[in-house]
Amino acid sequence: MNAEIVAVGTEILLGQILNSNAKYISEKLAELGIDVFYHTSVGDNRHRLTEAVRIAHDRSDLVILTGGLGPTGDDLTKETLAEFLQKPLEVRSEEVEILKAALAKRNIAFRDGHYKQVAFIPESSVLKNDYGTSPGMAVQLDKKVYIVLPGPPREMEPMFLNYTVPWLTAHLLGSGHQKIFSKVLKLVEMTESAVEESIKDLIDTQTTPTIATLLGPGVVIVRLTARACDETEFQEIIKPVRDEIEKRIGRYIAAEDKETVWDNAATLLTKRSLTVSTAESCTAGLLSASFTKLPGSSEYFTGAIIAYSNEIKEKLLGVPAAILEKHGAVSEETARAMAAGVRKVTGSSVGIGVTGIAGPDGGTKEKPVGMVCIALDAQDQQTAKTFYFNGKRETIREMSVNRAQILLYNYLKEG
Amino acid sequence: MNAEIVAVGTEILLGQILNSNAKYISEKLAELGIDVFYHTSVGDNRHRLTEAVRIAHDRSDLVILTGGLGPTGDDLTKETLAEFLQKPLEVRSEEVEILKAALAKRNIAFRDGHYKQVAFIPESSVLKNDYGTSPGMAVQLDKKVYIVLPGPPREMEPMFLNYTVPWLTAHLLGSGHQKIFSKVLKLVEMTESAVEESIKDLIDTQTTPTIATLLGPGVVIVRLTARACDETEFQEIIKPVRDEIEKRIGRYIAAEDKETVWDNAATLLTKRSLTVSTAESCTAGLLSASFTKLPGSSEYFTGAIIAYSNEIKEKLLGVPAAILEKHGAVSEETARAMAAGVRKVTGSSVGIGVTGIAGPDGGTKEKPVGMVCIALDAQDQQTAKTFYFNGKRETIREMSVNRAQILLYNYLKEG
Repeated sequence: MNAEIVAVGTEILLGQILNSNAKYISEKLAELGIDVFYHTSVGDNRHRLTEAVRIAHDRSDLVILTGGLGPTGDDLTKETLAEFLQKPLEVRSEEVEILKAALAKRNIAFRDGHYKQVAFIPESSVLKNDYGTSPGMAVQLDKKVYIVLPGPPREMEPMFLNYTVPWLTAHLLGSGHQKIFSKVLKLVEMTESAVEESIKDLIDTQTTPTIATLLGPGVVIVRLTARACDETEFQEIIKPVRDEIEKRIGRYIAAEDKETVWDNAATLLTKRSLTVSTAESCTAGLLSASFTKLPGSSEYFTGAIIAYSNEIKEKLLGVPAAILEKHGAVSEETARAMAAGVRKVTGSSVGIGVTGIAGPDGGTKEKPVGMVCIALDAQDQQTAKTFYFNGKRETIREMSVNRAQILLYNYLKEG
Repeated sequence: MNAEIVAVGTEILLGQILNSNAKYISEKLAELGIDVFYHTSVGDNRHRLTEAVRIAHDRSDLVILTGGLGPTGDDLTKETLAEFLQKPLEVRSEEVEILKAALAKRNIAFRDGHYKQVAFIPESSVLKNDYGTSPGMAVQLDKKVYIVLPGPPREMEPMFLNYTVPWLTAHLLGSGHQKIFSKVLKLVEMTESAVEESIKDLIDTQTTPTIATLLGPGVVIVRLTARACDETEFQEIIKPVRDEIEKRIGRYIAAEDKETVWDNAATLLTKRSLTVSTAESCTAGLLSASFTKLPGSSEYFTGAIIAYSNEIKEKLLGVPAAILEKHGAVSEETARAMAAGVRKVTGSSVGIGVTGIAGPDGGTKEKPVGMVCIALDAQDQQTAKTFYFNGKRETIREMSVNRAQILLYNYLKEG
């Protein structure tokens, strides 16, 4: 079975809102093992919507339409679909009562225009809207399934999860139905090409699971995908491939699935009862902000000193003037002194120092824009690395944050 | 002319990423006065991609494809389009050199697979990729236009803005072509309802320009929209309405168009030769990161102290233990002492202190999650305000940053 998601709404085509519904529904359908082959967005225009429905009908088994269920003249989705299917729309009296109550709760008077919100194709099931006034509709006709959902994500998402998934499961998916599962491995300190090369034979030959590599923020992702009845079966299916990947490049795996590298660094900090502080120049607080993203971060994060000027690097972090003079503010030596300085001042177990040139100005031939030095200072280890990042100021700052997190993670993992 | 945006990538259909490119391009095309009638997403599958291209070709004048330009076997966009158009792809030697240099800079070896990245339909123009290795392509054939762009937004967006828009303007839009222009006014210290009320008569009666109010981060936006041939004509069209709005609520306008409140605060800092520093608890560096977003920020930003623990508030910021004990870490008194402390330590003209409860834990009845105290300390002014924000941890931290920026902006404006 393959599905298509058709979003209806001129505001999407004007770029005023993101079509996040397509992402949400796709993710849920993937988990159900239903392949999504197309997304389409079309405006509030009867002719073009009819054409989009016709194309979806021709190429897809399951057509999910979102948006255009309100009471105004712009809202055309159910009418257009019914016309295309040559079916009437009939008002259901029990739904009129529910709508009247919902409108009264919102202090909105029931008008004639509202009848269309509670009119449905006779053969259809109503999908309840717990967070708005437009119910959805699900109907199977000639082996094709049509689902109609409201546009606002806060109405659509619960309707999909609580009413559409059960409907699909009951009507389309038999027992023993296989869903699609994915395992995501996030690797650090390796390029995508290097990862690909080291498992190329597996990528080329494996079909269960299939293996794909892709780039994530600061990490390379290896994704194993397979159909299975449940999580346990999936884990069994991927085990041989997973073991082989772990044997080859397991030491670079820093996080899995929804986990970030930072989640795991935070867990290690807590587990080992360590604290961390940062001394930042070019990232100017982005690193400390990232270290405090998770609730309860005061357990392991003590504070930070953002030292933009050399004066503050000297005064607050105790970076020796001689180092700044000899090696410059952007140097591994300065990064080391910053890391050691902030560790001393805050009394934390680990200090991280970041200094670099975020640009767009301030680069030289020896020290170009994008050059960033990151150092770690702990009782048992002092390290520093220099990176050369490409991109805009914001990108360079973000990449610096990712690399600093990875540096800390690697230190914590080894210890 | 009507356009269709076709996103290519299985990861979109799996719901792993949002198709933000379609939104971005739609917004820019709307500004150019080009109607977008359809968005389509299709996977990395030659057959289905060909079908999507065929449909787009039949119903749209301008077809913009995003994604699938990389060097791997999955990347099919240019090949599939060329095959559909019955055109060859020819390697351009000058682009080979550019690619080799770009790869070398990233320490990636040039492999045979890379040739396809620099192969183009003979009649096409190359669209330069300043932030990645896959150039784009623009070609007009039989009155239809095809644009091919890379998938990653950080590569696609600058390529669209800097190379695609000029290409479209030169090739498709004649002189006298009317574009859609918008003027955005950003207001602070007023609610959206208050803004709406004060200009309701204008919103209801004006059609050229149309007026809309919406919520932005920390600001209320008033947007004036009209068609015009150029910026000058647009400014003339909106002048009477704009003057009337300024007369009524002009004193709350803190920024216009792409400007942020912070841009204007930074301009005022530079103009008045003032420097600023921050002392942050719950925002933990987000404020200082925002103060250093613009290039050249070292002119007015000296540094920051992120004091998560009380110990550091005392030790590094000199917040008296008595204040912490009597009023608590989250209090206007502590915020004031933090602001004064960081100003003293860094020697800056203005200090900003932020302390609050970002949650989800740590709230009490008197001091609930979302309570944030923000203070400003300067020679001629000391102020503090308490806010009660709703939302998740991340939202509360962001709202705090916005409010702190506005506090500083208002101080600078008055001075």
